[in-house]
Amino acid sequence: MKVSVIGASGRVGKAAAFCLAEENSVNNLVLISRKESFDKVEGEALDMYDALAAKDVNVKITASYDFEDVKNSDIVVLSAGQPRSSGMSRMDVAVPNAKIVAEYARAIAKFAPESVILVVTNPVDIMTHVALKASGFDKHKVFGLGNHLDSLRLKNLISQHFNIHVSEIHTRVMGEHGDNMVPIMSSTSIGGILLKYFKGYDDFDMDRTVEKVKNAGNYVIKKKGATEYGPAFAISNIAMIVLNDEKKILTVSALLDGEIEGVKDVCLGVPVKLGIDGIERIIPIIMTERERKAFLKAAEEVKTKTEEVMNAIDL
Amino acid sequence: MKVSVIGASGRVGKAAAFCLAEENSVNNLVLISRKESFDKVEGEALDMYDALAAKDVNVKITASYDFEDVKNSDIVVLSAGQPRSSGMSRMDVAVPNAKIVAEYARAIAKFAPESVILVVTNPVDIMTHVALKASGFDKHKVFGLGNHLDSLRLKNLISQHFNIHVSEIHTRVMGEHGDNMVPIMSSTSIGGILLKYFKGYDDFDMDRTVEKVKNAGNYVIKKKGATEYGPAFAISNIAMIVLNDEKKILTVSALLDGEIEGVKDVCLGVPVKLGIDGIERIIPIIMTERERKAFLKAAEEVKTKTEEVMNAIDL
Amino acid sequence: MKVSVIGASGRVGKAAAFCLAEENSVNNLVLISRKESFDKVEGEALDMYDALAAKDVNVKITASYDFEDVKNSDIVVLSAGQPRSSGMSRMDVAVPNAKIVAEYARAIAKFAPESVILVVTNPVDIMTHVALKASGFDKHKVFGLGNHLDSLRLKNLISQHFNIHVSEIHTRVMGEHGDNMVPIMSSTSIGGILLKYFKGYDDFDMDRTVEKVKNAGNYVIKKKGATEYGPAFAISNIAMIVLNDEKKILTVSALLDGEIEGVKDVCLGVPVKLGIDGIERIIPIIMTERERKAFLKAAEEVKTKTEEVMNAIDL
Amino acid sequence: MKVSVIGASGRVGKAAAFCLAEENSVNNLVLISRKESFDKVEGEALDMYDALAAKDVNVKITASYDFEDVKNSDIVVLSAGQPRSSGMSRMDVAVPNAKIVAEYARAIAKFAPESVILVVTNPVDIMTHVALKASGFDKHKVFGLGNHLDSLRLKNLISQHFNIHVSEIHTRVMGEHGDNMVPIMSSTSIGGILLKYFKGYDDFDMDRTVEKVKNAGNYVIKKKGATEYGPAFAISNIAMIVLNDEKKILTVSALLDGEIEGVKDVCLGVPVKLGIDGIERIIPIIMTERERKAFLKAAEEVKTKTEEVMNAIDL
Repeated sequence: MKVSVIGASGRVGKAAAFCLAEENSVNNLVLISRKESFDKVEGEALDMYDALAAKDVNVKITASYDFEDVKNSDIVVLSAGQPRSSGMSRMDVAVPNAKIVAEYARAIAKFAPESVILVVTNPVDIMTHVALKASGFDKHKVFGLGNHLDSLRLKNLISQHFNIHVSEIHTRVMGEHGDNMVPIMSSTSIGGILLKYFKGYDDFDMDRTVEKVKNAGNYVIKKKGATEYGPAFAISNIAMIVLNDEKKILTVSALLDGEIEGVKDVCLGVPVKLGIDGIERIIPIIMTERERKAFLKAAEEVKTKTEEVMNAIDL
Repeated sequence: MKVSVIGASGRVGKAAAFCLAEENSVNNLVLISRKESFDKVEGEALDMYDALAAKDVNVKITASYDFEDVKNSDIVVLSAGQPRSSGMSRMDVAVPNAKIVAEYARAIAKFAPESVILVVTNPVDIMTHVALKASGFDKHKVFGLGNHLDSLRLKNLISQHFNIHVSEIHTRVMGEHGDNMVPIMSSTSIGGILLKYFKGYDDFDMDRTVEKVKNAGNYVIKKKGATEYGPAFAISNIAMIVLNDEKKILTVSALLDGEIEGVKDVCLGVPVKLGIDGIERIIPIIMTERERKAFLKAAEEVKTKTEEVMNAIDL
Repeated sequence: MKVSVIGASGRVGKAAAFCLAEENSVNNLVLISRKESFDKVEGEALDMYDALAAKDVNVKITASYDFEDVKNSDIVVLSAGQPRSSGMSRMDVAVPNAKIVAEYARAIAKFAPESVILVVTNPVDIMTHVALKASGFDKHKVFGLGNHLDSLRLKNLISQHFNIHVSEIHTRVMGEHGDNMVPIMSSTSIGGILLKYFKGYDDFDMDRTVEKVKNAGNYVIKKKGATEYGPAFAISNIAMIVLNDEKKILTVSALLDGEIEGVKDVCLGVPVKLGIDGIERIIPIIMTERERKAFLKAAEEVKTKTEEVMNAIDL
Repeated sequence: MKVSVIGASGRVGKAAAFCLAEENSVNNLVLISRKESFDKVEGEALDMYDALAAKDVNVKITASYDFEDVKNSDIVVLSAGQPRSSGMSRMDVAVPNAKIVAEYARAIAKFAPESVILVVTNPVDIMTHVALKASGFDKHKVFGLGNHLDSLRLKNLISQHFNIHVSEIHTRVMGEHGDNMVPIMSSTSIGGILLKYFKGYDDFDMDRTVEKVKNAGNYVIKKKGATEYGPAFAISNIAMIVLNDEKKILTVSALLDGEIEGVKDVCLGVPVKLGIDGIERIIPIIMTERERKAFLKAAEEVKTKTEEVMNAIDL
């Protein structure tokens, strides 16, 4: 399988590339950067080769600034763009990033028309919409990383509070990958048992936990300057589900057409069944009244912001 | 098993920490930095937790600037020190790093007297000697990463030239992790067949290949600003062999006592059998006359430089 | 870590031993059989060594009929006993197996008093009780494989009907590992979404599915003469959770003391949190009225049968 | 990738099928038996599904006696035939097995003309020849398991004598998978160091070791009634190298055309580079005079026996 990472000189891009290189299913990996950063991605490729030799893994890694090398990719990870620094919101980088994403999405459509696009650039719900429109791809073939990462963060906090293995926690954050994220606590379960019936629930401060998830990305950026390993593994997670046609259910940013609460024409984090062709279908989910309201508010706000951004770049 | 990484705010340290966190055998990982860098390692720990949730792995990760947290470590990775930038040789950082390494080695001896120390700080052959002397540890419990990484680089180049899976290449670089490295081409084999009998050998430019290996670290630093994934995986490779008592043979920097070519009282890259107690024994190896001479020259030069550095820091 | 398999000449025992040998965490594996079957387990050990070499794995495997070799085991898998043939119920072998299990449980208590015992011999809920009493072990250290395997079978059938990856299905069969098994369909979910809200639910014949799970073991025995790989992997699954202290929630046969629906003094399949010391705690679960009744009936019947068997062997 | 196993009701066939099912790269597995044994393979498939659920792996497994199901296989494992019992030599089953192999090879050529055939049926060097001729396939697409297994056995014995991890031992058994096997001790190495220079060599009884390897299969059969896990993993080993196009060097039975010591028109165990199209090339190897003689004798004898068998079945 062939995977291309656009924006591979960035911290998330290069870490994601490395996680992908380790996977058995990937035997051809392309690292794309702008021409100015080509030295950097060339260095990354060499550094990765050393690492893979330590693991006795053989992968072909190509560093490049030429989009032709993206040809025949099964999946393209689109992580190019200006990163946000500490204190910046994901929206502060929206318009400049939208230009970059639109340009690259067109290039992907030209050189790898059969591929699936995983959008990582922030604000991701809007960028997914931009990539979808600019590429002209079918909507099941373009989706964004966002709430999957938030869901992992929520899983961790629950796992730590209840002292249960992280794989036993089933929870989901939906809506916007940003302030309007909607944790679906009502159907969160541990080992198949609803959270509210679990010992330790009374000491569990749900609001504080949700607040922590909302700020987790910013907090890591404040501490170490960037998020890196978390997004990287979340990306390789999603890519593997697609490449191996695993039919798993993940929360990714997808264009809605009324499947959930009647919401339409906006990209939001929702549960989808993923396979080799991308999104197989969006999975309806039952929410409480409070969750429903929060989800509708997220839809409203992301839609408005998306329109603004689209107008600003004439898409 | 518990592993501590000293210098976890550095690029190699943090990447190594992350590789170690992914391993099943490690369930307790401590990231140590100076107090000034504590925010950074705290951010790393959080970022790693997100990543591990994506892999359904549970590890306890502690960020700290307090050496007491190193207590009961099975292995301590000592990677603190000033990194070399592009253009600097590994010797340019020798004296300042020796001070840091000596101080930390004493702290390890105090708080984790049962541990094994893997030295990563450059110039690694000298720093291994410093750590050994400052810790007062038995010589089988202190060794350095160096030629193992060079060997991986040589493996890669051979694998690519002959188009054979990297795991089939058996080769070894010995001597100094630096200009006086000694590739043992005479016993290099592919799939158990000596290199010189292998199809494609006539087109194989050995001298150029060796030159490339010598400059590989510097080249990556020039390109991407630092080496990172390569050393990180080489470190976790060695750590796993120790923690799982695997009895594998690797080239690490070890204090010689006449086992190879009669060389004594200097730390050099040599083949050793590694297990849970560190170096089980140094493995003698047959060299050609040319290789032997180069090895003796490496011994001579590293010994001189080690003495200089030791004197400079009064050890 | 050291694992011993008692009854390693049987089909489940030897297959379980092999699954365990493949695991990184196991480096010492003991295969115990009666003296008459020693040749067989010696052959198994040799055959396993060949296989492990193909995987580049190093484990020490000891074939033995001497219980002293069980010493210092971290976990003992007790799978000795007469297998049931096609047409036999698990109860037909109860009394003869209870004698064997009691004898071996005493031997484990003598030679490996610190170990955890995983009972596999059928009828497993009764045999777990026998092993617990005969060993004199604390109740958290003895538990049985049974409903975990039934749960896996139910997972498979749901996964196939809904065409979703098996890892996304969260379901649980409780009660007796036999006719009185109780599938907890009310809290069965796919990707965190309750089964009844999932597309395809209307075509899902729950009663027929449950019937299939009940007969699955017998069906496989009728077809191939024995169950083998299914139980083997379920065993190594549980053993790994214990050895790696994973804090996962599995359904195993455990002695109840009122934790669920007030049931006491009987071993039944219930959700438990497992770690290095065995059962950390039994996890209460909410059932529907129908499930509750079935669970109480299972408790009643298993209690009666256990008493019969205990009396028959004077325990 | 799709793999078919012909003879999946046999002990080696079913164990190999199970090893293959565990591999990520295989997502479609077909178990073929004669109609009389269909129940058995159906049972195997169900039993495997239970096991795979325990590992959270999704594979489609089809039990069948209809050769059409082999269609589009990437690799076909041909393990059908009469097994040898204790005391029988591999030659005792040669003619009856040749008939079976020829028939199935023709069926493979009809239904899966693009596949690669891995022959397992004994005497494997002869059966490889039969399969090659009957299928009419190109010679690089048909090869046999034999000396790879012998090599694994030799690796184990060396690993145990020298107490070094099995992955460090590089050795190779060539020639016939039978009495005329030729261990290439002259180029056997441990960690890249020639055996004869290794500490402990003086106590190493080479002749006894070789004798043990020759009898290993028979010994396991005598003990447990059949070889099973060893061949199974060796098979999945080879299959994975092919499916993942790994370019590794293994010893398989291949039709020679003068590549080694001028030997022609006979299938013998020789080192080959394997990839997605099967044998990429046969790798010449340097032998000592004694090894060369033994290899030529193996060639002579296998050629004679092959002709006899071919004549007996009119091929």
